[in-house]
Amino acid sequence: MNGAVPFPLDLPELTIGDVAEGLVRRTILPSGVRILTEHIPGARSATIGYWVAAGSRDETGAEGASPSHFGSTHFLEHLLFKGTPSRSALDIAIAFDSVGGEHNAVTSKEYTCYYAKVRDADLPMAVEVIADMLTSSLLDNGEFETERGVILEELAMAEDDPGDVVGERLFEAVLGAHPLGRPVGGTPDTIRAATRDAVWEHYRAQYRANDLVVAAAGAVEHDVLVAQVTTALVAAGWDLSVSAAPRPRRSSTPATLSGATPLRVVGKPTEQVSLMLGFPGIVAADERRTTMAVLNSVLGGGMSSRLFQEVREKRGLAYSVYSYAPSYSDAGVFAMFAGCTPGREGDVSELMLAELGRLASDGITADELDRAHGQLSGSAALALEDSDTRMSRLGRSELTLGEFVDLDESVRRLMAVSADDVQELARELAAGPLSVAAVGPIDDDAFRQVAPV
Amino acid sequence: MNGAVPFPLDLPELTIGDVAEGLVRRTILPSGVRILTEHIPGARSATIGYWVAAGSRDETGAEGASPSHFGSTHFLEHLLFKGTPSRSALDIAIAFDSVGGEHNAVTSKEYTCYYAKVRDADLPMAVEVIADMLTSSLLDNGEFETERGVILEELAMAEDDPGDVVGERLFEAVLGAHPLGRPVGGTPDTIRAATRDAVWEHYRAQYRANDLVVAAAGAVEHDVLVAQVTTALVAAGWDLSVSAAPRPRRSSTPATLSGATPLRVVGKPTEQVSLMLGFPGIVAADERRTTMAVLNSVLGGGMSSRLFQEVREKRGLAYSVYSYAPSYSDAGVFAMFAGCTPGREGDVSELMLAELGRLASDGITADELDRAHGQLSGSAALALEDSDTRMSRLGRSELTLGEFVDLDESVRRLMAVSADDVQELARELAAGPLSVAAVGPIDDDAFRQVAPV
Repeated sequence: MNGAVPFPLDLPELTIGDVAEGLVRRTILPSGVRILTEHIPGARSATIGYWVAAGSRDETGAEGASPSHFGSTHFLEHLLFKGTPSRSALDIAIAFDSVGGEHNAVTSKEYTCYYAKVRDADLPMAVEVIADMLTSSLLDNGEFETERGVILEELAMAEDDPGDVVGERLFEAVLGAHPLGRPVGGTPDTIRAATRDAVWEHYRAQYRANDLVVAAAGAVEHDVLVAQVTTALVAAGWDLSVSAAPRPRRSSTPATLSGATPLRVVGKPTEQVSLMLGFPGIVAADERRTTMAVLNSVLGGGMSSRLFQEVREKRGLAYSVYSYAPSYSDAGVFAMFAGCTPGREGDVSELMLAELGRLASDGITADELDRAHGQLSGSAALALEDSDTRMSRLGRSELTLGEFVDLDESVRRLMAVSADDVQELARELAAGPLSVAAVGPIDDDAFRQVAPV
Repeated sequence: MNGAVPFPLDLPELTIGDVAEGLVRRTILPSGVRILTEHIPGARSATIGYWVAAGSRDETGAEGASPSHFGSTHFLEHLLFKGTPSRSALDIAIAFDSVGGEHNAVTSKEYTCYYAKVRDADLPMAVEVIADMLTSSLLDNGEFETERGVILEELAMAEDDPGDVVGERLFEAVLGAHPLGRPVGGTPDTIRAATRDAVWEHYRAQYRANDLVVAAAGAVEHDVLVAQVTTALVAAGWDLSVSAAPRPRRSSTPATLSGATPLRVVGKPTEQVSLMLGFPGIVAADERRTTMAVLNSVLGGGMSSRLFQEVREKRGLAYSVYSYAPSYSDAGVFAMFAGCTPGREGDVSELMLAELGRLASDGITADELDRAHGQLSGSAALALEDSDTRMSRLGRSELTLGEFVDLDESVRRLMAVSADDVQELARELAAGPLSVAAVGPIDDDAFRQVAPV
């Protein structure tokens, strides 16, 4: 098969087909559990991920969104490593350490994913251990208190990373009151205030059969995996005979943003100013997402990009300078980053805004378009060599996009992006409300040039 | 072939043989250029690296090691991206960006490596462009001044990363006056004082045919690559007809260390204290390097390791805690890291030292040994799925180890490591002089418990 296939959720089983890279298949169990695989011929290892369709944006208690729940998704992710009736925390750690596998989890704004990369022979172990963690975590009171300390250390470490801090502040500034604007891990205050009851409530409400997507790529046989996952979930006590539709995908209608702020400066005695300029971006399923990839490649996606050339190569004002465009179901951000010497943040901001402005007013050249086509298709092909990239593609396809797009179709869409498309998107972005976030030995006055407040 | 093969440097060409993973071959040109390849059947991409056997430890001027040269290796690495008579900096960036390849360089204490990962069809381009950069850099005066600014920004960014800072201070503390103790990139003062003449001198002295190792893995044919590299170097003006032996490998006799310091505390108003405890380690070619890998795995190599269990899982004192053992030709370091709340650095230090002491006094269990065997063999197999890991293995084999060790032989050596071997090495490490490095809102007094000064 070649192309994009929408996921019709009413089909109990769908073979999506033979893509260039591997055979992609999906099974939906009657209970709403979704299992997707991509078999890669010749692979000797596999990556498997258990995705739960709940992230930090979903943190609400019975009374609605409340600070006492902020960070509970990430807190829960930590606790799932801490033991079940049949496995202690040490048992779980040993299971993966003793085979040399990678085993970790990531909490995001819209999902939580528990994953492992292992050799083919160890895949059944990974299927079983993660299923046990996911379904049967004890959330022991003592472990809860110990882990509170670990999470506070994790937040402190992030607070000491200027890049992390400026990224969080920019999201808050651009997305304002939208739940996607909140930091994934909560804050030290909300973590100190967190209760086991709130985390337990989140666990019970969000970790149900129809919230779960299991995705695996590499040395994996679809039918075998479906049987293994089913066995593991049933053994862990889940009743898969209950009939339920998979949790519907979130709306992809762009949310109306409110509460954005033009400037968020965090004063810190660092050597550099870490600087981000951002605008509202596009949603994940927006048809212009390929156009956004081209725009980002030309503006700030590599050493030949305009930001790299203008800020670093010609003027030596930064070591790290780039743009990026994270997107979510109903909101997105477009941002430009640079780290520079204190005192130059105004000039660097103006330079970056001027480059975005030039993209909006003059568009891109045919050479730049060609180069972006080559860069994006080449890097996509290289990325697919890793089974983890393929596993993530499956999970994101199911949870967010609602279609699976293979490499050939991706490249076809990419080649269809024109210079006019890019200019039009640049114009739209540049016309949006600008937010500036910065960390360094500076205050608001540093941005009088670009963000008068 | 199965096993380890010493590299007899008097052979003009040596087929090392058919290892489990791929066919490894080496050719030494009469001029001393060494070319190593590992062909991986079925691969559609390749990683190529041009390794120069010079790193920051080799920074000396006509007058011997002098601060005015410190950082010149790294400065030169930056300048090699800035243009040749036939390619501008932008041309070089475009060459790789337009095919979506990864292209970068790393300056280390003992070598400098310029590498690229590209699709098979783009390998000839990578061979030619890196050869041009390496042989024909202009080191333009204007570019030199611009790049000085970029490097100062890079150093400032590293100075804002507590993990980077504590690592540099620990190396200085453990290795003392040894050239390996110096930071790779120099300091802001040495970079401000750097002259084009000093960097040019380094370039001429260290970038000769017999300093060069070209290593490639993946979709690469040995004979074709040898011809391409030869053509590219000759086209760039190198005279490969001159007969020269490859630069001898550095001595692997452990250096006598002097000037170590017990305590290096950098006061900074961070949220966490970043903490490292270190001892002199073993050299890269030490036969006990596999024993060191096992020791490190048991003590601080994963979630089931003793440091992770004692410091994080049982007590919640840290989020990040681990040990590592970087090694070089004639010196090495063994270190334990943790990030913790200010005020707990003394307790965490004592805990970590107690765990090393317990390894020295009581050894490891049979279960721990089994687990380390599984972890290290499993992760080695998974790592070899990437052509970049294989390319690095080739380069390190040639430059540092003097033998190529395939996966089967690695595993054989690993299984031969006994619990007694590990205990004996732990005893030797723990008996060495302790150095403590820390970054945070603290001063020397914080370590009265562990490092009286």
